Amino acid sequence: MAFQGKKLINNPNDVVTEFIEGLVETYPGLQYLDGFPEVKVVIRADVSGTTYDKVAVVSGGGSGHEPAHAGYVGEGMLTAAICGDVFASPSVDSILAGIRAVTGPMGCLLIVKNYTGDRLNFGLAAEQARSEGYEIETVIVGDDCALPPPRGIAGRRGLAGTILVHKVAGAAAAAGLSLADVASEAQRASEKVGTMGVALSVCTLPGQVTSDRLGPGKMELGLGIHGEPGAAVVDLQPVEVVVSHVLNQILSSETNYVPITRGNRVVLMINGLGATPVMELMIAAGKTVPKLQLEFGLAVERVYTGSFMTSLDMAGFSISIMKADHTMLQRLDAPTKAPHWPVGSSGNRPPAKIPVPLPPSRSTKSEESLSRPLQLSEQGRILETAIEAGVNAVIGMRDSLNDWDSKVGDGDCGSTMYRGATAILDDMKKYYPLNDATETVNEIGSSVRRAMGGTSGVLYNIFCKAAYAKLKANSDSAVTAKQWAEALEAAVAAVSKYGGASAGYRTLLDALIPATAVLKERLTAGDDPSTAFVLSSEAALAGAESTKDMLAQAGRSNYVSAAILATVPDPGAMAAAAWYRAAALAVKAKCEKAS
Amino acid sequence: MAFQGKKLINNPNDVVTEFIEGLVETYPGLQYLDGFPEVKVVIRADVSGTTYDKVAVVSGGGSGHEPAHAGYVGEGMLTAAICGDVFASPSVDSILAGIRAVTGPMGCLLIVKNYTGDRLNFGLAAEQARSEGYEIETVIVGDDCALPPPRGIAGRRGLAGTILVHKVAGAAAAAGLSLADVASEAQRASEKVGTMGVALSVCTLPGQVTSDRLGPGKMELGLGIHGEPGAAVVDLQPVEVVVSHVLNQILSSETNYVPITRGNRVVLMINGLGATPVMELMIAAGKTVPKLQLEFGLAVERVYTGSFMTSLDMAGFSISIMKADHTMLQRLDAPTKAPHWPVGSSGNRPPAKIPVPLPPSRSTKSEESLSRPLQLSEQGRILETAIEAGVNAVIGMRDSLNDWDSKVGDGDCGSTMYRGATAILDDMKKYYPLNDATETVNEIGSSVRRAMGGTSGVLYNIFCKAAYAKLKANSDSAVTAKQWAEALEAAVAAVSKYGGASAGYRTLLDALIPATAVLKERLTAGDDPSTAFVLSSEAALAGAESTKDMLAQAGRSNYVSAAILATVPDPGAMAAAAWYRAAALAVKAKCEKAS
Repeated sequence: MAFQGKKLINNPNDVVTEFIEGLVETYPGLQYLDGFPEVKVVIRADVSGTTYDKVAVVSGGGSGHEPAHAGYVGEGMLTAAICGDVFASPSVDSILAGIRAVTGPMGCLLIVKNYTGDRLNFGLAAEQARSEGYEIETVIVGDDCALPPPRGIAGRRGLAGTILVHKVAGAAAAAGLSLADVASEAQRASEKVGTMGVALSVCTLPGQVTSDRLGPGKMELGLGIHGEPGAAVVDLQPVEVVVSHVLNQILSSETNYVPITRGNRVVLMINGLGATPVMELMIAAGKTVPKLQLEFGLAVERVYTGSFMTSLDMAGFSISIMKADHTMLQRLDAPTKAPHWPVGSSGNRPPAKIPVPLPPSRSTKSEESLSRPLQLSEQGRILETAIEAGVNAVIGMRDSLNDWDSKVGDGDCGSTMYRGATAILDDMKKYYPLNDATETVNEIGSSVRRAMGGTSGVLYNIFCKAAYAKLKANSDSAVTAKQWAEALEAAVAAVSKYGGASAGYRTLLDALIPATAVLKERLTAGDDPSTAFVLSSEAALAGAESTKDMLAQAGRSNYVSAAILATVPDPGAMAAAAWYRAAALAVKAKCEKAS
Repeated sequence: MAFQGKKLINNPNDVVTEFIEGLVETYPGLQYLDGFPEVKVVIRADVSGTTYDKVAVVSGGGSGHEPAHAGYVGEGMLTAAICGDVFASPSVDSILAGIRAVTGPMGCLLIVKNYTGDRLNFGLAAEQARSEGYEIETVIVGDDCALPPPRGIAGRRGLAGTILVHKVAGAAAAAGLSLADVASEAQRASEKVGTMGVALSVCTLPGQVTSDRLGPGKMELGLGIHGEPGAAVVDLQPVEVVVSHVLNQILSSETNYVPITRGNRVVLMINGLGATPVMELMIAAGKTVPKLQLEFGLAVERVYTGSFMTSLDMAGFSISIMKADHTMLQRLDAPTKAPHWPVGSSGNRPPAKIPVPLPPSRSTKSEESLSRPLQLSEQGRILETAIEAGVNAVIGMRDSLNDWDSKVGDGDCGSTMYRGATAILDDMKKYYPLNDATETVNEIGSSVRRAMGGTSGVLYNIFCKAAYAKLKANSDSAVTAKQWAEALEAAVAAVSKYGGASAGYRTLLDALIPATAVLKERLTAGDDPSTAFVLSSEAALAGAESTKDMLAQAGRSNYVSAAILATVPDPGAMAAAAWYRAAALAVKAKCEKAS
């Protein structure tokens, strides 16, 4: 069944004039002639024919090939672009208006793609302009390599290679060359470029039904840019195979269309036909360059990858190869203000790109530091006590956590936390450097990340890494209570920032934010550190229990009703309060016992 | 029925690494880290972290949004882009590798689109990098305006507005600002930009089947850049209507997502989602600008139209609007070498584009010159005789021409030539300035163009215009035989060039090329002009009859067998020979009578 093609347009008859209106809104340097709807001409805003002291370079043709040709208007490339209706040659009057608007005493070069309508209309306009006293030269580009010679009067079609001719001519004109010299450089360029296209889908004209000429899994070789049938319909192949076929066709010694032989320097253009993503064009470019170098023995001097000469919304691409000498590379590299000439492809390329070696980690942690010390220091023993108490609390809560989570989430909070907790216990025995609290915090993060997975694993890892970074910046091996408090604050801030939650979102932050506040407050007030931690842990527990009264803001709890939420606290918050409180109580007990 | 999506790729699992390989082949200024397939990082080829003396600006995320983000790597924009698999957040190790590769003493800003995976992975990498001693700041961009607040933890998605944040941050970094200042400019930019997307089709992941979620004639409002469902599916509307809806949503005073009010200065980005032709994006831009100006009272300072942040091959677009002050405009206008930052949109825009008036014709022809002279000069009488004889010959041959043409073409050559001939007769009586041969030739061209139509009309018009231009350059009102010969030669050359045919192509040139050669030869030999013309006309007739032995090269005769072609001459060539010979004989007779 055929449906009208979907397009972001208004009246299908107005697409070209509305395109031009949007174009000049986008680019301050472009203007158009006041001749809609017949005369659709885009010109450089800074050029007026009466005073222009360079050779004008004018091109154009049917519309539907955007950004060609209007997108190449700008200093150093085209002086004017003449736009026909979609896939229809512009009228002689339109072409004449463009010539008159931009041609000064140095004259005008017309660059015409080889289609009968364009050739005749541009030709007639050229003759008319000459009879008005303008100096005019014309170069006709026929770069298609898809079909074998002889092509008779119709000749080879003008395709994406035309853009390279525009650039060479525009740069030559900008350099101040005479009309004869600009035309001769353009003519030389046109004789050295060959192109062939491949389509995965045909294009749909504005207001028309979408054609399904190509079936699923098929592609068309050697088609033009007007949806005309190609040379053959074949099964879709990997792009590597397609590229090989196209290169063999363009560089065929049988047709001898382009004068390119082993050892030559060439430039390459990979051109999207309208609906081809940049990703696919780059993949094609990445396969084409080494083939040209290794299989055809060519030096690839420049690569232009993008959608330069399209066919409305056609999916597919064309490859153009142009033999390039030093002068031509200079013309291609010369600066231009044309908005759609590609940026970043100029200048010499290395023959091959060797990827940059992966930079090493700046981490100072050495292998030997990653082993459990034979003898624990005072602080090491306290840290061990705290960790053991904390993870055991989480281990003991597994079923409660799962139970709460089954009512407000996916029911695995207890199991996930349990995995993390047991991993910490195991790893601590194996290699935590407990005498170095800072590095131990870092290792807890790594254990958690390895064992827990999912969002909570990443969040606890962020928690540990942020605490670690703060501890490392602040302290030597011995960590003060104030430094622990600052580390906790940094860790909570990082979890909030990257996790996207704040207080009241019914997350672990509802335990840890009040805990942080109370800890800071008590330490500032001069409390004994272990007492301050215990008081802070009471705030954590109270905060966790208060989550019953909160609406869910994150994750699955989003979809749970307030009535159910009111019966259970947030399991993540309860788990955080539990390990924090257990650790605080254990440290307090140990300190009291010691004193 | 669902088919696998057609893509120009090789193995679907390799699309991102192969994209990067093609990207660095295309752009000499880009490099990648040697960590495939896990680490997929594109960096500036000229930056090494150990020595880099500017703030590094790093972004990234899932792939499938090309050219984002790798296409924005370059001086003045991103220092590195971290590429995940298609629509999947990059790994922490990948992000860390990128940070390490480009971050120097000035530190690194991470710009992260607001998706949970990206936020967590970039967040963890940031904390890890900090713990290694790097200075890191992070800005999270959530510019989506499609859905009403509150959005909870997930928040607003990061969309195309992120590109504007990249540019502001990159320019601030290039200007030598500190990490804190670069981060603060990026943060400000991220708070001032709003975006909303519209899709006509959903995207197809490499190796997956094409979804047909949207039916024909439908579009989806407010979707993201990962093919996730949008806010609503509605009937496809003219783009003007779509634009209005989107602008109302972005600038809604209810959601108050962007702090933009009447009188503010803004920049606009029209972003294609992957398969949207430039033509359609420009049409949208052309409708959006005046709406923002007139309906919302905003000053539109810059317009960026193109495909900047795509969703594979999705058809559709998004609109981003950012409030912009002087500093921000400076950042946006600052030069960058990033290949895909748009060219030509910088600098002040005029509030409205008034099209350039159509330039006048330079033609000196005045109204009074276009009337038949009351008294004919000697040359005027000869010219009248020649024209009358020529057109009468064509008129008399109508049926023969049609008959020949019916065997080798579409059978209307006689009728077409008859229309031209009678128009010339009529117009000559009415207004040909016969005492001025040069202008009369020009008018014959106009009569022919008006009456004949089609390719032959244009070709005869080119013939006359080229002759006219030559006569005008060479002569005053009296035209010598030598000047006629030169004009004929120029006319034949123009028809050959623009028509694409040469001698032996079985066209009118097979009469006119030998005629031109003989005329020149006889005049050079010193023959009496009228004799030289008659001899030349014999060559024309012989040439026309010799077309029987030629294979067709042009037009429909292409498809006719050689056996049939051998029985008839080319009607176009016969017609040309007929008018030329009749004119020559009539002039000769008149001259003999006079002498």
